[in-house]
Amino acid sequence: MAPHKLCMIPGPIEFHEDVLTAMSTPATSHVDPLFVPIFGESIEMVRDVVQSKVAQPFITSGSGTLGWDMMVNLLEAGDEVLVLTTGYFGDHFAECLEVYGAKITFLRAEPGSRPTEQAIADALAKTKFKMVTVTHVDTSTGVLSDIKAVAAQVKAASPETLVVVDGVCSVGSEEIRFDDWKLDIVISGSQKGLGVPPGLSIVVASPYAIQVFKDRKTPVPSYYSNWAKWLPIMIAYEGRKPAYFATPAVQLIYALHTSLKLILSQPLETRFKKHAAVAADFRQTVRNLGLKTVAQDEAAAANGMTAVWLPEGVEVSQLVPALAGKGVQIAGGILQGLATKYFRIGHMGISVMDDERQHIQKVKDSLVASLTELGYKN
Amino acid sequence: MAPHKLCMIPGPIEFHEDVLTAMSTPATSHVDPLFVPIFGESIEMVRDVVQSKVAQPFITSGSGTLGWDMMVNLLEAGDEVLVLTTGYFGDHFAECLEVYGAKITFLRAEPGSRPTEQAIADALAKTKFKMVTVTHVDTSTGVLSDIKAVAAQVKAASPETLVVVDGVCSVGSEEIRFDDWKLDIVISGSQKGLGVPPGLSIVVASPYAIQVFKDRKTPVPSYYSNWAKWLPIMIAYEGRKPAYFATPAVQLIYALHTSLKLILSQPLETRFKKHAAVAADFRQTVRNLGLKTVAQDEAAAANGMTAVWLPEGVEVSQLVPALAGKGVQIAGGILQGLATKYFRIGHMGISVMDDERQHIQKVKDSLVASLTELGYKN
Repeated sequence: MAPHKLCMIPGPIEFHEDVLTAMSTPATSHVDPLFVPIFGESIEMVRDVVQSKVAQPFITSGSGTLGWDMMVNLLEAGDEVLVLTTGYFGDHFAECLEVYGAKITFLRAEPGSRPTEQAIADALAKTKFKMVTVTHVDTSTGVLSDIKAVAAQVKAASPETLVVVDGVCSVGSEEIRFDDWKLDIVISGSQKGLGVPPGLSIVVASPYAIQVFKDRKTPVPSYYSNWAKWLPIMIAYEGRKPAYFATPAVQLIYALHTSLKLILSQPLETRFKKHAAVAADFRQTVRNLGLKTVAQDEAAAANGMTAVWLPEGVEVSQLVPALAGKGVQIAGGILQGLATKYFRIGHMGISVMDDERQHIQKVKDSLVASLTELGYKN
Repeated sequence: MAPHKLCMIPGPIEFHEDVLTAMSTPATSHVDPLFVPIFGESIEMVRDVVQSKVAQPFITSGSGTLGWDMMVNLLEAGDEVLVLTTGYFGDHFAECLEVYGAKITFLRAEPGSRPTEQAIADALAKTKFKMVTVTHVDTSTGVLSDIKAVAAQVKAASPETLVVVDGVCSVGSEEIRFDDWKLDIVISGSQKGLGVPPGLSIVVASPYAIQVFKDRKTPVPSYYSNWAKWLPIMIAYEGRKPAYFATPAVQLIYALHTSLKLILSQPLETRFKKHAAVAADFRQTVRNLGLKTVAQDEAAAANGMTAVWLPEGVEVSQLVPALAGKGVQIAGGILQGLATKYFRIGHMGISVMDDERQHIQKVKDSLVASLTELGYKN
């Protein structure tokens, strides 16, 4: 691989050499008998990564944001939606849902924390929701939601309510038990825990969600995001037959196939434990530096990324270039009004799973050295 | 490049080695100072390829079909739209526009021909259209529309009417003079004349189209396709500043940048003349074989692809595998009711521009040999 800055932002993450090689697969028809099983197996492996036996994956050309848009298939005008927001992405997901007619009830927590069980119970008692959305890891804060507990609470109060998880920054780096936890939707993108360059939208839907889509009373007010277009395509390719709605991103799907094979070559439990261990160690490094993570307690801290409050006197506009000068790309903040007050580091995928690459050590060393250079004393 | 079947379908086409190398660019942040100018220059070069000085390109993650979807920005419920259809893609574009409230008037021609000037004049005289759509090259038939003449006719009759060109199968292989011909929209994808793997939607909008978008009376009923989200992103990157709505497909944009540089390294006129010469020669080969192209006359035949009626006794299900056995991938038909009656061959990009690759010779030789093997006698 050509020398480059280590990409240690919370996505895109570093890519395995074999994944990058797959990106340069020579021109191949989207209906070529060689490609059809690659797409079909990718659909199956996406289902495996979220530990489902029955869910329907959708793999389409687009960014993670396109997955939000696909909720147009489930919403009808006036539907009540409860949005549990733990940062920028929860807020913007709600903005998307409103375009498709949702009446939003927000449960917001202060930056770094998450809505309480009591607050959720109160909201569920007051309104019958069509859908509850929760951001598994909000990339703006690094706050991890307890989606297992949220789903259990929602389904206990209202079994018909759809549980929708924004897993853009969690699929592949956080444990997800789609069937066991009774999730209805998990939305993701290719460029984070799945370890593939950006450009694929990935959505997984429960049989119940598909039924809600099929039973809707009004037409889906979207063309490109319409599951009526995509569902036959996914079923065809999984059945090892080609079908056409829009040309799939052949090279990205070869790359996804390669990465999913690597991910599934060892038990998922091993993968999630390793991510948790590296994240805990990274947070300890932060504390040792006398700094605080944005996530306010260990149980609510993501395993694939960490957001850290900057110390007094160090600007994000100094810290990011200082690390870049050491060959490490990190990210600034994006929470409105607080964007300059913190920075974010990704620890997902091969950077976590392959110790020999020394990515995590390099980012820790560069962080310590950069802070020191910028005059910070613990 | 690894050995593979030559991909001679009407897109995806064969990719230049440098484009494939760019596809495997190591992980790079979408806000990295190295990437920002790559995106910015790509936007500028897309404008150059359609020979505009003033148009606004949108480069987004998605397939060519997403470009159709973006017409949601220009349509409001009840808007009259005239659709000039020369095949499958014209019909389906109309289906998309209907989702966004368009009242469609179709001008259909029999397979292989295009709506007449008189028919267009009659339609324009009868109704005030918000938009007229024309498929520059319908990939299902290989029929080339005279978009210069259509635009002139529409603008003469009704200057306020938007002229929307589906250029998915023409940008990069057919001459387009966006400003001179007074076009308002050109829609394309990455995988045809632009010579880049599939996964990017490319839309170019005139200042007038942007004004129509800004002056609309009702909110845009889409989130992912909403120009209010994308316009600031395109303006920022072209101004060499990063901005965020959805993560761009970094590697695909590196590949697009590489391909656009190659395309613009010689005069566009040379490129279009070469495509025209190769296409004319290919049609002559077809005639020499005693076969007929679907496009009924030379002036209405595309320069980047050709659709050919099968002779009696030869099945498409025999011909496609026969060529595949010789290392050449071609495509069957897709016109409803006629799909098994014809086949399609792409002749675009490096396969046309670089004679030394011998792609065109190989497809011609393989076609002749396959037909002979299948018992066809001229």
